[in-house]
Amino acid sequence: ITTINWSLAQAEKAGYKHFMLKEIYEQPRAVADTISGNLPWFRGEMPIKGLGNFKPERIQIVACGTSYYAGLVGKFYFENFARIPTEVDYASEYRYRNPVVNENTLIIAITQSGETADTLAAMRLAKERKAKVLTVCNVIGSSATRESDAVLYTYAGPEISVASTKAFTTQLTVLYLLSIHFAVRKNLISNPDIYLEKISEIPSLMEQFLEEEKKKQEVKNLADRFHKVSNALYLGRHVNYPIALEGALKLKEISYIHAEGYPAGEMKHGPIALIDENMPVVTIATKGRVYEKILSNLAEVKSRKGITITVTNESCKEVIENSDFSIIVPETDEFLSPLINVIPLQLLAYYIADFLGYDVDQPRNLAKSVTVE
Amino acid sequence: ITTINWSLAQAEKAGYKHFMLKEIYEQPRAVADTISGNLPWFRGEMPIKGLGNFKPERIQIVACGTSYYAGLVGKFYFENFARIPTEVDYASEYRYRNPVVNENTLIIAITQSGETADTLAAMRLAKERKAKVLTVCNVIGSSATRESDAVLYTYAGPEISVASTKAFTTQLTVLYLLSIHFAVRKNLISNPDIYLEKISEIPSLMEQFLEEEKKKQEVKNLADRFHKVSNALYLGRHVNYPIALEGALKLKEISYIHAEGYPAGEMKHGPIALIDENMPVVTIATKGRVYEKILSNLAEVKSRKGITITVTNESCKEVIENSDFSIIVPETDEFLSPLINVIPLQLLAYYIADFLGYDVDQPRNLAKSVTVE
Repeated sequence: ITTINWSLAQAEKAGYKHFMLKEIYEQPRAVADTISGNLPWFRGEMPIKGLGNFKPERIQIVACGTSYYAGLVGKFYFENFARIPTEVDYASEYRYRNPVVNENTLIIAITQSGETADTLAAMRLAKERKAKVLTVCNVIGSSATRESDAVLYTYAGPEISVASTKAFTTQLTVLYLLSIHFAVRKNLISNPDIYLEKISEIPSLMEQFLEEEKKKQEVKNLADRFHKVSNALYLGRHVNYPIALEGALKLKEISYIHAEGYPAGEMKHGPIALIDENMPVVTIATKGRVYEKILSNLAEVKSRKGITITVTNESCKEVIENSDFSIIVPETDEFLSPLINVIPLQLLAYYIADFLGYDVDQPRNLAKSVTVE
Repeated sequence: ITTINWSLAQAEKAGYKHFMLKEIYEQPRAVADTISGNLPWFRGEMPIKGLGNFKPERIQIVACGTSYYAGLVGKFYFENFARIPTEVDYASEYRYRNPVVNENTLIIAITQSGETADTLAAMRLAKERKAKVLTVCNVIGSSATRESDAVLYTYAGPEISVASTKAFTTQLTVLYLLSIHFAVRKNLISNPDIYLEKISEIPSLMEQFLEEEKKKQEVKNLADRFHKVSNALYLGRHVNYPIALEGALKLKEISYIHAEGYPAGEMKHGPIALIDENMPVVTIATKGRVYEKILSNLAEVKSRKGITITVTNESCKEVIENSDFSIIVPETDEFLSPLINVIPLQLLAYYIADFLGYDVDQPRNLAKSVTVE
């Protein structure tokens, strides 16, 4: 008998060094599957199962960690497209703050596992107060799905790495589709297919970035250069502010580097004092309504001698000129740009952790599914 | 002629080494003045001038920096006492996110100077969309006061130090009084004097802490011990989560130490990975509904060997036992505890900056009033 020195775990990694890297690369497929899996209700001709003709006056999103940041992007979608006032809460805070919630409120719980204790507790409080509860979840039959009025699934497939990647981008996908669905049902949008076309381009744009060997090498070079820093700032505005938070969280989780995300316009109200020639500042500066604003925030960082690393588009010449390092991502609709822009930040955190020799898939102190409060 | 080597600035410091320290010590007086200055409208018998019989369906608070954190505490007040759904926005983000705002929305702009460009821009957008605008401001005749439907003043007196202290606690005072006012006008509270009594105790509780030489020495010793750290975490829950954010901001602003505030319940969803034996973790753990919860968050930090520094009450034995260092503050109503709990954090940042030899009142890269966007 010869022993084949290849564990099941390695086999499942499909040749990737870690699950996290594999899962980053699965995102084009995961987003595509999530779009098609949710098409049946998307166009708003019929209500979502479990919601009937319910018209939410307000939305409250409850979630933790990466899912909370997906919720922050979702707020832009629900307010901008469906004009429904939306609040996003840390699930661990929600139940203690005596929230204003009633039978006209829609609670959207976002949880990859469907077993996050804080999120379940928040859902239960909201149900007691007669709110409708919809869960966005990746695991069929999980507690959250069983306790909800309605469930929308992300079709990410099993996510093994503790640091969430494909769950995040598929959550964004569901929230986008859901906001358009509500907009149609409120007669604010008459042609949902325009929006469907936009999001349907995302998987191939993701692939375009991920499959270009040169891009991967650029991110890897950045990781090589900066893996020994102990601090970093991540800046973004509008829909990419939550992406700055998420990029910083990824670095915290697996590289143990103290990275903090900030809305770029808030820099001058305090955190800019931190910036000197040793501080890497990662700024998301792709095309959109805040482009000119972010450009001036970038200049502020540069004038304080911060190290400017930008995620930007090829056409953003002023950004590229003002950056010490730029990662160029494909241009897309600004509301969907978070799905693209997060990818280089995931990769950057991944390669930094790998350079540091850490256990990427099982970072210290963290569990994949937090089933205690 | 003999030259008296005593500048006007020094004279105005009234014997304190820096304006910031002077202003920290002025808080009991500033809060007391703010209470009495706002008494005429507090009991809700008459509407606030400029608001008439306006009944806000929703409140949106717009602010920057420290004022933004005051707004986060205000959200608890308006929702808990007056049951008005309240959203808090970074002013720099508000105008770009196409907010859902209409003639039933009350905008509360919080700005010490009344000249904060981002806040003024947010107010103008809201006015265009027919919202009522109320400003909480420290400077009579400033732009924000001239452009508002109604104005409530903080009676902090001139704040010279760039890092805001007495402006913050007086803003909290106004927001608390205003929430009770709205609650009375909505018939949710019939005896506002109970609440007035509670807040009227705050100045003497502040004084009790500030005037005890031993307390000052304890905070100074902590500052001496930790002034060379490069990172810190600040944790809180419920009304003290914004205080954790504010404590961290103070340290960032004047000590250039990368401190980050976090809701304590979110630790296990990511940032706990950062904690090792070199990470000071400042936790606000005073009496209130989340006391047991924060106690278990503290145990999590301890089990990861983090350095536990707590702001707590004398009766919180379990917290004190689980802390490497504790600062004991006077016990008060949980909703008002932020006004007390922030003081040791202001002092800690102050003494750390002073140990580091920095220009406390004029930190690098920062301006007192940010009049550019």
